[in-house]
Parts: sequence; C-alpha cells; structure tokens
Amino acid sequence: MKTVKIAPSVDLKIVSARTAGFAGADLANLVNEAALLAARRDKPAVEMKDFDEAIDRIIAGLEKKRAMSDKERRIVAYHEAGHAIVASVLPNLDPVHKISIIGRGFGALGYTMQVPLEDRYLMSRSDLKSQLAVLLGGRSAEEIAFAEISTGASNDLQRATDIARSMVTEYGMSDALGAVNYDGHRGSKFLDTPFMSERGSHSEDTAQQIDVEVKRILSDAHNEARRVLRERRDNLDELARRLLEKEVVEGDELRTLLGPTPPKDAEGTVPVDVIDPGVA
Amino acid sequence: MKTVKIAPSVDLKIVSARTAGFAGADLANLVNEAALLAARRDKPAVEMKDFDEAIDRIIAGLEKKRAMSDKERRIVAYHEAGHAIVASVLPNLDPVHKISIIGRGFGALGYTMQVPLEDRYLMSRSDLKSQLAVLLGGRSAEEIAFAEISTGASNDLQRATDIARSMVTEYGMSDALGAVNYDGHRGSKFLDTPFMSERGSHSEDTAQQIDVEVKRILSDAHNEARRVLRERRDNLDELARRLLEKEVVEGDELRTLLGPTPPKDAEGTVPVDVIDPGVA
Amino acid sequence: MKTVKIAPSVDLKIVSARTAGFAGADLANLVNEAALLAARRDKPAVEMKDFDEAIDRIIAGLEKKRAMSDKERRIVAYHEAGHAIVASVLPNLDPVHKISIIGRGFGALGYTMQVPLEDRYLMSRSDLKSQLAVLLGGRSAEEIAFAEISTGASNDLQRATDIARSMVTEYGMSDALGAVNYDGHRGSKFLDTPFMSERGSHSEDTAQQIDVEVKRILSDAHNEARRVLRERRDNLDELARRLLEKEVVEGDELRTLLGPTPPKDAEGTVPVDVIDPGVA
Amino acid sequence: MKTVKIAPSVDLKIVSARTAGFAGADLANLVNEAALLAARRDKPAVEMKDFDEAIDRIIAGLEKKRAMSDKERRIVAYHEAGHAIVASVLPNLDPVHKISIIGRGFGALGYTMQVPLEDRYLMSRSDLKSQLAVLLGGRSAEEIAFAEISTGASNDLQRATDIARSMVTEYGMSDALGAVNYDGHRGSKFLDTPFMSERGSHSEDTAQQIDVEVKRILSDAHNEARRVLRERRDNLDELARRLLEKEVVEGDELRTLLGPTPPKDAEGTVPVDVIDPGVA
Amino acid sequence: MKTVKIAPSVDLKIVSARTAGFAGADLANLVNEAALLAARRDKPAVEMKDFDEAIDRIIAGLEKKRAMSDKERRIVAYHEAGHAIVASVLPNLDPVHKISIIGRGFGALGYTMQVPLEDRYLMSRSDLKSQLAVLLGGRSAEEIAFAEISTGASNDLQRATDIARSMVTEYGMSDALGAVNYDGHRGSKFLDTPFMSERGSHSEDTAQQIDVEVKRILSDAHNEARRVLRERRDNLDELARRLLEKEVVEGDELRTLLGPTPPKDAEGTVPVDVIDPGVA
Amino acid sequence: MKTVKIAPSVDLKIVSARTAGFAGADLANLVNEAALLAARRDKPAVEMKDFDEAIDRIIAGLEKKRAMSDKERRIVAYHEAGHAIVASVLPNLDPVHKISIIGRGFGALGYTMQVPLEDRYLMSRSDLKSQLAVLLGGRSAEEIAFAEISTGASNDLQRATDIARSMVTEYGMSDALGAVNYDGHRGSKFLDTPFMSERGSHSEDTAQQIDVEVKRILSDAHNEARRVLRERRDNLDELARRLLEKEVVEGDELRTLLGPTPPKDAEGTVPVDVIDPGVA
Repeated sequence: MKTVKIAPSVDLKIVSARTAGFAGADLANLVNEAALLAARRDKPAVEMKDFDEAIDRIIAGLEKKRAMSDKERRIVAYHEAGHAIVASVLPNLDPVHKISIIGRGFGALGYTMQVPLEDRYLMSRSDLKSQLAVLLGGRSAEEIAFAEISTGASNDLQRATDIARSMVTEYGMSDALGAVNYDGHRGSKFLDTPFMSERGSHSEDTAQQIDVEVKRILSDAHNEARRVLRERRDNLDELARRLLEKEVVEGDELRTLLGPTPPKDAEGTVPVDVIDPGVA
Repeated sequence: MKTVKIAPSVDLKIVSARTAGFAGADLANLVNEAALLAARRDKPAVEMKDFDEAIDRIIAGLEKKRAMSDKERRIVAYHEAGHAIVASVLPNLDPVHKISIIGRGFGALGYTMQVPLEDRYLMSRSDLKSQLAVLLGGRSAEEIAFAEISTGASNDLQRATDIARSMVTEYGMSDALGAVNYDGHRGSKFLDTPFMSERGSHSEDTAQQIDVEVKRILSDAHNEARRVLRERRDNLDELARRLLEKEVVEGDELRTLLGPTPPKDAEGTVPVDVIDPGVA
Repeated sequence: MKTVKIAPSVDLKIVSARTAGFAGADLANLVNEAALLAARRDKPAVEMKDFDEAIDRIIAGLEKKRAMSDKERRIVAYHEAGHAIVASVLPNLDPVHKISIIGRGFGALGYTMQVPLEDRYLMSRSDLKSQLAVLLGGRSAEEIAFAEISTGASNDLQRATDIARSMVTEYGMSDALGAVNYDGHRGSKFLDTPFMSERGSHSEDTAQQIDVEVKRILSDAHNEARRVLRERRDNLDELARRLLEKEVVEGDELRTLLGPTPPKDAEGTVPVDVIDPGVA
Repeated sequence: MKTVKIAPSVDLKIVSARTAGFAGADLANLVNEAALLAARRDKPAVEMKDFDEAIDRIIAGLEKKRAMSDKERRIVAYHEAGHAIVASVLPNLDPVHKISIIGRGFGALGYTMQVPLEDRYLMSRSDLKSQLAVLLGGRSAEEIAFAEISTGASNDLQRATDIARSMVTEYGMSDALGAVNYDGHRGSKFLDTPFMSERGSHSEDTAQQIDVEVKRILSDAHNEARRVLRERRDNLDELARRLLEKEVVEGDELRTLLGPTPPKDAEGTVPVDVIDPGVA
Repeated sequence: MKTVKIAPSVDLKIVSARTAGFAGADLANLVNEAALLAARRDKPAVEMKDFDEAIDRIIAGLEKKRAMSDKERRIVAYHEAGHAIVASVLPNLDPVHKISIIGRGFGALGYTMQVPLEDRYLMSRSDLKSQLAVLLGGRSAEEIAFAEISTGASNDLQRATDIARSMVTEYGMSDALGAVNYDGHRGSKFLDTPFMSERGSHSEDTAQQIDVEVKRILSDAHNEARRVLRERRDNLDELARRLLEKEVVEGDELRTLLGPTPPKDAEGTVPVDVIDPGVA
Repeated sequence: MKTVKIAPSVDLKIVSARTAGFAGADLANLVNEAALLAARRDKPAVEMKDFDEAIDRIIAGLEKKRAMSDKERRIVAYHEAGHAIVASVLPNLDPVHKISIIGRGFGALGYTMQVPLEDRYLMSRSDLKSQLAVLLGGRSAEEIAFAEISTGASNDLQRATDIARSMVTEYGMSDALGAVNYDGHRGSKFLDTPFMSERGSHSEDTAQQIDVEVKRILSDAHNEARRVLRERRDNLDELARRLLEKEVVEGDELRTLLGPTPPKDAEGTVPVDVIDPGVA
C-alpha cells in the first residue's frame, strides 16, 4: 500500500475486519479499486468511504440497482430487517455494521453485514444456536409482516441446515446422538492414524435420528427468531420503513433505533460470515 | 439494431419481455430473422408482426404444421385452453399473450404464452401454487372434456413435480417438513462457510415424508385447476372451439371471452416461463 | 427416386407408412435394394412386392430361414397368432398388415406387423392398455395352446413393462399415484427452469407403490389378452394352422378369417412399432 | 477344409454340433489341430478320434492330468456321474455325449458333455427346470454319496442361480411375480421405443419377493435331482466306479448302463452348454 | 548428523521417540532446523532445547501465536488440561511430555504431547478404551468447567469414533457383534487367498447394531473421562490456571501437581499419536 | 539349478511344497538366496537349512527382530501357540511345519506354518470349518491366557470372515440359505451362457440372513477353537513357554509335545495358506 495515499480518517482495523478471508490478490485489488474511486472523486487521499465502497463492489459485485417491484422491495426490506434485529437482540453475536436492500451481483437482493470485533477460533453450542436464529430471522420477518413466505429464504435455509447438521454430526452437540462423529472422515491435517476408516456411513436408523435432531434444532431457532421479532414488531416495521426510504441503514442508526440490547461481549461474538447475503 | 429499420408500430417493451433469457447471439439472430421476414414481404420496415413471427421461429423451431388427426387437434385445443383459462382466472399470474395449437419443432403440439409485465425476483408460496394449477390445467381440461387422459401432459407433470419438490426441499414451504433444506448443497455463489457439508442425503423416513408432501401439493393444485375449469366449462368449450377454427387466439380475445377476471396485479405476477410448451 | 422406374401398382403411402422412422440413408438403401430385386427378376419396373421384400430385408435382416424344430415352429405360430388376433379384436389399434413365422436376423423368430394409418402424437390411457394386451397376446396364446410358457416372450415383457412403468411414473395414468412425475428429469428440450431438481429419486415406499401399480396394470392387460384369445380360440387355432402351412399370412386374409371386428377408427389407432418382433 | 484329408468315418454333423458357437478362427484352428494330431499318429487321413481330441483341446485346454488325490477323484467322479444321470433320466434334455474326470485347463476337474441334436431357439419353463436339476445333480450326488458337500459345486450354483433369476425377472415364469420384466432394459436389437425407461430398479419389497422365488425354484430343482439320484443310486455308484477306473465314459455306455430312460425327443432337447464344466 | 555438533545434554532416545514416523527427509530437515536454531542463538552445539523447538516447528508449523481472546484461551486451557489429566490418571497410557496452549500451524489451538517409552505393536481392548477416554477428556473438561461445549472437540470426536468403529468392525472387540470382520477387505500384505470376497457390505440390520455398539463404547469412554476429571477437579483448575499463566507445562511439573498416579508400566503404554493436536 | 551344488540332505519335495505358488522368478531368486547363504557360511553345498532360511526371507521379508516388549512377546507366543494347537488337534488339516515368534517384514509379529502334503482342489464343509477354528485359534488363546483380546487378530478375523461368507454365498454350505449363489457373477472362465445376469445384488432381507449365518458359522468355529485350547491348556502354556524361550518351535517338537492327535489323513488335508501370518 505504499504508493497510495491513505487519509487519516481510514480505520484500517475496520477495513481488515471486513476483509477477513480475502486473499492477497483480493487485497491488492481492493486498494486499487479504492484508489480509483478516490481519484474519480478528485480526492487527495483514499478515504474510508472509498474503501467501504470498494469492499462492497468486490464482495457483492458492481453496484447496480435492480428494477425490483415495490412489493418485492417491501419483502426484501422486512427480510433484512429480520436478520438485523435478531442479530442485534440475541447475545454474543457480532455487531451489525450495515443493512442494505440495494441488490447486487448474483442472487443477493439485499444484505445484512456483521463485522466481528476480533478473530474467533471456537464457537460454543449457544453461539451456534444464536447464529441459526439470525439466519432464520429473514424468513421469520416475512412470516410476521406478510403471513406469507417467499423463495428468498432458500439460501438462508441451506446455510442454517448445514450448521445444524454439523452440530449433530461433527461437533457432538446433540445430546440424543452423543459425542460421536457421524460424518465420515475428512482427513486430519497432519496425522494419519492406523484407525482411520473410510466407512463413515451409518445405518438408516441413525440417519433418521440425525434428521430428527437437525429438524428440532432448526425448529427451535425458528421459534426463537419469531419470538424476538414479535417482541420487537415496532422496531421491525420501523427498520423496514427506513430501509425502503433510504435503502441503506448503518449499524449505529440501528442501535439507536433498538435502544438497549444485550452488551456486545467481544469474546462472545460469532464470526458470522462477514456478509450475510440475506435474500438470494 | 442500427442498420435495420424498425416500424413505429413495434413495441420494443413487448419484444423485450418475450425474449427474456435470450443471449446476445439470440437477439442478433432475432433481428436478422425479423428483417429477413420483412424483406420477403417487401416491407419498408420491420413490423411487430415480423418480430412476433421471428420470435416464434427461434423459440419453437420453424413453423411447420404437423399432420395431426382431428381427434388429436381436439385434445391439444382443450389442453391449451385449460392452461390459458387457469392462468387467466387465478390471481397474481402473468397475463396470457397468445394461445396456439400450431405444432412446432420438437415435442410441442401447441402452446400457451404468458408474458410477465416486469422482472420478478421472488415468488411467494401462493404464487407457486397458482403456477402449479396452470401447469396441471392442460391435463385437467382433457379429463373434463374427454374423461380420458393422454401422454401429452408428461412435460407439464415433470415441471410441476420439480416446482413442488423445490417448495418442500429448498424453500421450506411445507409446514410438515419445516424450515429445513433437504436438497443438499448447490453451492452459494460467493461464500464458502466452514459448515458446508457435502452430505445432503437424508433418511428413508424423510424421503417418504417429502414424497407425501409433494404428492399432496400437486393433488391440491390439480383439484384447484379442475375446480376453475368446471366453473368455466362454457369458456373452455368456446376457447377450444375457436382454437380448432383459427389455430391461434390472442390474449385480448381470450380476455373478452372470459369477461371479468381478477385484476392482473403487476407486482403479483409470476414469471411462468415465457412460453409454456403445453403438450409435449 | 428419379432414375428408378416405379410400377403404377406401388402404393407409396403404404411404403411410406411402413418406413416411418427411416433415416435418409435407409430410404436410399431401400430404393436401391428394391431396384436390385426387380432387376434380378427381370422386371421393367419396381413393383410393390419388391418394395415389400426390400423393406423386410432392411428391417429384419436378410431373409434366411432358420432350422427351427416343428415344435418351435408351432410355438412361434401360436405366439404370433396371439399378437395378431388381440391387435385385431381390441378397438383403436393399428390394422395388422402381415404375420410371419419366417425367422430373420437377430432374435426375431417371427413377427406381426401393424401399419398405422397416420402419424400419432398422443396416446390415451386406453390406447396404451390395448397396446399392452397386444404385447402380452403372444405369451397368452402360448399359455392357452400349450399350457406352458417359453423364453420367447421376454422381449414382449420388457417392452410391456417399460410402457406400464411410463404410464405410472411419467404420464400420471395411475389414480393411486396421481399426477406426479416419478421418473426424475430428462430435460425439456428448449427451456431450463430455475426449479429443475436433479433429484428424481423417491422413497422406498413410493418405489413399492410404483411396483404394485405396474404389476397391476400388466396383470389386467394379461387377463384382457387371455379373455380375447379364449373367446377367439377357433380363430387362434386356425390362424396358427395357416401360419404353419404358409409361413406368412396377410392382413386381409386375417380380417376375412376373423369376421367382424371393431371398426378401425383412424383417429384412434396407436402407432405400435411398425414391426412387432414377436418372439425374440 | 480343402487340403486336409478327412476319413469317411468322420461324422461332420457331430463335429458341427459339438462346435456350435465356434467362430471362424476357432474352426480353422480345429482343423489344423486335428490334422496335426492325425499326422503325429501317422494316419493317412483325419479321423473322428482326432477331431474329438482336437475339440477337447481347444475347448478345455490341453490335456494335462492333475495330481488329484484319490479322495478328490472319488468326489469328482460322483459329481460328474450325478450331472450325467440326471441329464439322462429327466425328459427333454440333450443326450449325454461323454463324461470325464480328467482335469483340464482352468478350473474344471471333470466334465459332462451334452450334445444337442439340433439348434434350439426357445426353452420352456419345464425345460429350464430340468436344466436346473442337471446343474444341481453334481452337488446332489456328493450329498448322497458322502453326506458332505464340497467347494466344487460353486460354478454350478452360480449358473443355476443365473438361470433361476432369469426365469423370474426376464421370462415371467414365476406365477407369484407375474408377466413383468424386473431386470431393467438390456436394449432391443433394432427398435427403440419412446417408452424405454432407464430405471429398471425396483423396490426392496420386490427384490425380496424375487429372492424368495429364486430360492424356491432352486430348492425344487435340488429336490428333483436328489430324487432322481436316490432312485438310481445303483447306477450312480456304478458310473462313478467306471469313471474312477477308466476316467472317461462315453454316452452310449452310459445309456446301456442306465437301461430305458425317457425318449430323447429331439424337439424337446435343451441346449445345455456344449460342455458342462462340472466341478470347477 | 556428522557435521553438526550435538551437545552432550541431548537425549537422542527422547528425540527418537518424539520423531517416530518421521521419514528420512524429515529427520534431515529436523537436524538442519535444530542446527540453525542453535546457530542463531550463538551456541557452540545443538542442545536439547533446539531439538525440541525444531521438532515442534516441523510437526505443528512455525511457532506463531494466534490472537486468541481470553475466553478462548480459557477454553483451550481446560480442554488440554482435560486430555493431560485423563492421560496421566488412567493406567497403561504413555506419559505426558508437554502441554501447550500456544496455537500452531493448521487447526491446532493447543496440544497435549505423550511420548511412548517404546514401540508398540499390539493394543488390548482396555488400552483402546483408555485411549478413547483421553481423546474425550478435552471435551469433558469443557463440559465440567463451563457447562458448555465448543466446536473445538470435533477432531477428537472424529478420531475417537474411528477407533471405536475399528474396535467393533475390525478387532472383534464387541461381544454383541462377535469375532467377525465387518469392514470389507483391505488386502493382506503378501497373500491372496481364493476366499477373498470383494463384498464387504453388510445388511442394514448389522449396520444398526454397529452404530449402537460404537455409540455405547464412546459413551462409556465419555463417562470415564468425566468421572476422572470430576474426581480431579482441583488438579484440572490448577493445571488450566498454570497453562493460562505460562502457556506451556512440562510433563514433570504435571506429575508433581497430580501426585501419585498409577505406575507407567512401559509394557502397557499405548502409542497415542506422538502429538495430540487437542483442539482443532 | 544347474550351477548350484545342492547337498543330498535337501528334500526337494519339502522345498517344493513350501514354495507352492511361487512364480519362476521367485524360484530363481530362492536358489540365489540359498546359494548366497550357504556361501556366507562357507559350505561346499546348499543345505536344507539354507533353503529354509531363504524361503523364510523371501516370504516374510528379511529376518529382523523387532524390539517387542516382553508383554507383547507373551501375547504373540500364546497367539501362535493357539493357531498351532488347533491346527494339530482338529482332523484333516495340514501338518504344522514350524511356529515362530520372530517378527518379520510387514505386519507379521509371528507365524504358524502349515505345509500341505499334496495339492488340493476341493474342500469340504468340514474342512473349511476346521480351517476357521485354526484361524480363530490365535485370538482364542489370547482370551484363555490373558482374559483380554488384542488388535493382533484383525487379519485372522478378516480371513475367517471371508471364508465364512464364501461358504454361505458361493458354496451353498448354509442349510438356511440353500444351494443358491448370492455373490453375483464373477465370470466363468470359458463359457458365457445367455442366462448370465449382471444383477447379483439381493434384497436387504437376504443380506440380513447372510449376516446371521456368517456370524453363526464364525461363532461355532470360535467355540470349537476355545474348546480345543481349554482341553489342551497345559500344552498351550508349554508351547508358549518354549516359543518365548527359543522363538522357533519345529513341527516335530510340537507333535512330541502334544502326544497322540488325529491321524493326518493326507487326502483330508486342507491347503491352509502355506504361511499363516498369525498376528498381523
């Protein structure tokens, strides 16, 4: 980053947090993009705004509003508001950085962005349960606001199902199924033991118990998301209204709107993917 | 489209709507074809009719009447009339643009064409249910008119089954099976999470519940289609009669024939494939 | 066909009907073969007989009598007579053109040839049921005449099973299983919908219901074939006798033998494969 | 066969029957081999004996006695005697040409050779049942003579199981499973119908019914073979004794030994493979 | 190791034990690395400390502290303390050499290292049960200290499941399933028997019995680990405290802390992998 | 073997019996190795001892004692003693040639070598049952001597399971499952019949019956081995003691130790693999 002038206002910690997982090439590309944006705006140095926009572009594709119908915009607004409110109200989750209903790139009609305060290497069972509630928060908001559900939650369902299944089959987090790995062997990184079996497949009976547990875990998270959103129905309507009006709501505005929520305990945060693509 | 002269009568919005999904090459090909047709008819400019015919040719193969027997033409006429009437009578569906029993290209003996008023990115559960009823409307009309069913509905059944299965396994639209993804992982476009499991397969017990739900959803849609067509039996007979007489019936004529139907709420329309190949 | 002289007696409609499905090369080959046969017989022009023989050669291999035992010839004669009588007595089937017990080419020890009066694009449930009875007519005749069954019906069973299975899984013709596709996705020719799932597999429970339905449909057809042949036992014996005596019986002779049968309603005919290889 | 002198004693019909299925190259090789053998024996012409030996060599590998123990020779002798007596006593089977306990080539420790009197194209259910009894005759003889069974029958069991399974799944010869094909589609030779499904798989329930039927058919054949051999116990002991003494017993000697058996109805013969490798 | 000067303090037996399984190249690399480390520290000869560090680097990647949160460090400390205490208290296990919560290389956030006193070629059923308890000791400690479980035990669960499954399917150590191999055939090294079947798959019923046994064995080991740690709760807290303070605790310090434990019977030791990556 | 001088003491029949299955290259290698060993020992000719050692080297890898612990040596000694005593006491088995607890090559920690007196082509059901008891004799001895089992029997279990499964699925030796092949088709060497089905798979129900039978057969053999060893407990302890003392015990010494055992009926011997690798 030598030949590019960075404005003092740029908080590299935020930039870094938002680009967790970027490869070297992505980062180089990011700086170029930000410098270019600053140049176009005749700025003497790259500012935080330029970085933010450059990150947005790289992650979610070039900004390009889709011609969504008013009805669809309302659905997307409530969907994202649902994600954002559950993420803010439940404890131990990363703070919401931004909510947007500007459609971008492939699939995403809106997004709710959470930024972890620090790297996380471990997640507890309750962390994962909260994360599931956040993922199902979008669909739950649609149910509450429209008494209807749409195809927009399919990516959320897929990711939530993957997490719930891993809780049962890899992390031993289902009491019914116990401290057993049911997911075959994915290879430890540096040690091969003589015990490693290639047969990870289990019986039909076990497969059924896994299905029942996965469904139960998701059902609990769904109920939790609906409970939060019903209690915060006013916040939900207001946030959706603001999204429809302004398209983007920043995390601070959301926090002001919500009033007191559980403290964001840094150590308890969960690295939800930096960007939750919301409706896909 | 520079060197081709377009007549002022051409409504490019209609052309555009009918060619949704066309690749660049298809569009270039379309303009060529339309210009060629206009040239053959010694017209000074390409008219709407030329575009319409060019689109028809490209989509469904060159126009070539098949020597269908009278009996088969009657079956096809009722089949398409069934699609068209259900599509017009149920709410929130794209308006019918044209109905035809002129066989074309591979497989299609007729078609019912719906044109969406605008792009759609989300579909609700009720939208999809209506769409299923449209797909089963062809077969239902055959049952009502002939107390017999033919092989002509097999493509409709396949598409309807695909949609119903997606409702259950991807969109979480079955209350019995809940907000769970049962369809494995098809890869999100730009984010890999550490939770992604490659095991999307579920137990036999779950597979059976899915089958039961898919069958129930299709059975409901079938009943809905039959209900609509029994109530509109006169319209069905009249539309089939006109198709047998004229081979093609335009959307406006259909609307006049049907009289008042639910308003076409633009926001509620469902992008049924531009062309419903009907009997295949 | 320019340089070949065709006798006026040749009914090209019959030639055409018998060669449905021939590729261009096959047709060219046919004319050559017919011209050659006529030349060998010192005829000034190619006659219908030459065409008939050329078609026979191309379709079923060069005429080459096999040294079948008398016992086998009797079995084949009854087998083909069974196909032919069921095909003639049940309504809405293509008229029988010729019956032969001259073994040819691969597998076929005899054949019953039906020629459709026109192209067919749709088949009704009752058409298919009649076709199944025709296919099981050969085996049924063996049962009635010899109280014994042979390996000769295996190809008939296979084709009948394929049709019955398609009725249940693709055409929605089983009331028990409903208007659902159970056969996965074979790809529509020109449209890919976003709903297309690659998972066409169903549960064991559904697989069992399909098996039960397929077996029921075939059992009904088997009973129907046996009913027809028991009622026409005299015709069956007489036709088998004539086949043993003459090896080939033409459709007209069969019709005279059978006396009044249901009218061949052109629109109701079913395009059974042009040649039913009978015993394979 | 021009430059090779054939003795008048050679019955080419027998040679031909024994070499059914030989390719052209095999036949050329046979004549060479026979001529060579005759030359080595300083004969002016190739005699039947030379042909017989040449056929034996080509089919079963070069003659090479294995050092079997006396106990094993006794087992093999009874095993082959069992095949031969069942093949001779049951009706409608090809006559036994030769029985040998000279081990040859791969796997075979002895063999029973049947030669069909003419080509066969069809087999009836009773023909196949007799054939199964012949195949299980070797094992049955071991059971009767030694009250013990050996690994030597495994190839017989495999072939018998294949036939019994085909009776149930391909030939519709199980009343319980009916006239249905359960074996998927192996492709008809010259006609593709639009009904051909690639899904030949059936449900678990059907698979179980098939297993039960296959086991029942084999159990019946096993009992039949044991019944025959118990009734002919004296013949069995005598034939085994002669085999141990002479290693090879010709068909005529066997027929003399057995006395009157059911007439060998040429039309009823079953083309058991020319050579039954017996103990493998 | 000729040109490298080794300090007399180096115990090559320890080095050798810790590098069991190293290939020649790894060993060469190890000596280089140790020499390099000694050189950087201006030492005249390579000391034990250099070897220890070089081994650590090669095995677990270059030393690089991760910025774990305090909460995560506490979890990792208890997790490793759990492994170490169970490994020390249960009989017949290899002595603990070192415990560390310094994150290294791929996946491992900490490790507990056991060093076998000699090579082992056989393991008894009780040896394996103790090993399972060690593997589940990390998770058990988390449960006891935090009443919560984390994703950090997933690698432990996988390895424990592999061992338990091998006990049931390969070693015949489940009385319920008996002295039977249920794991197919992995090929004996130097002998192929004629009995080798490629079908190692068993029935669903057997698969279910295996699952039940595997789960039971793991559940017993889990209970054993929890029993040990509850009895040693004071030791657990103290060891975790020291790990948080010093990051690394040597085996001798652990032994002093624990006081009398069962004698380390060399012959009874179990070669747990040299390095137990603990939390991954 | 021309240029190598063989001492008159060499019994080539023994050499030959021990090298059954050797390829030409192996034999050449054997002679070289034996000559080399003799040369190193300054012998004028290759003696039996040299051949014995050369065979040992080639078969089981170069002689290289492993540093087994005393405890492991005791386990291996009892394990091999178990194999050897069951092999000597049960009738119709090949005589034991040598027992060794010198670890060699890959996997084998000891071995019991049986040498067949002659080639065998057939095995009876009782032969195979005895062979299973021999294979399970090692594990049984561990159970009796230590009331514990080790991982050392896994190769024995695998081979025993393969044999038991073949008895049920290929040799028709289970009365419950009858004279049926359940193992699909492995191809007969020189004849393809028209009945060969590629579907060898059976139903779940049949798979379960097979599992039950395989387990029953192995359980019976296990009990038989334990019965023999309990009755010969003194011999077992004594043989193990001598193995620990001398590492190798010859067959003659074993026979003297055991006293009268069933006669080794040459014809009844079973070609257990020349070398039973025992503990692997």
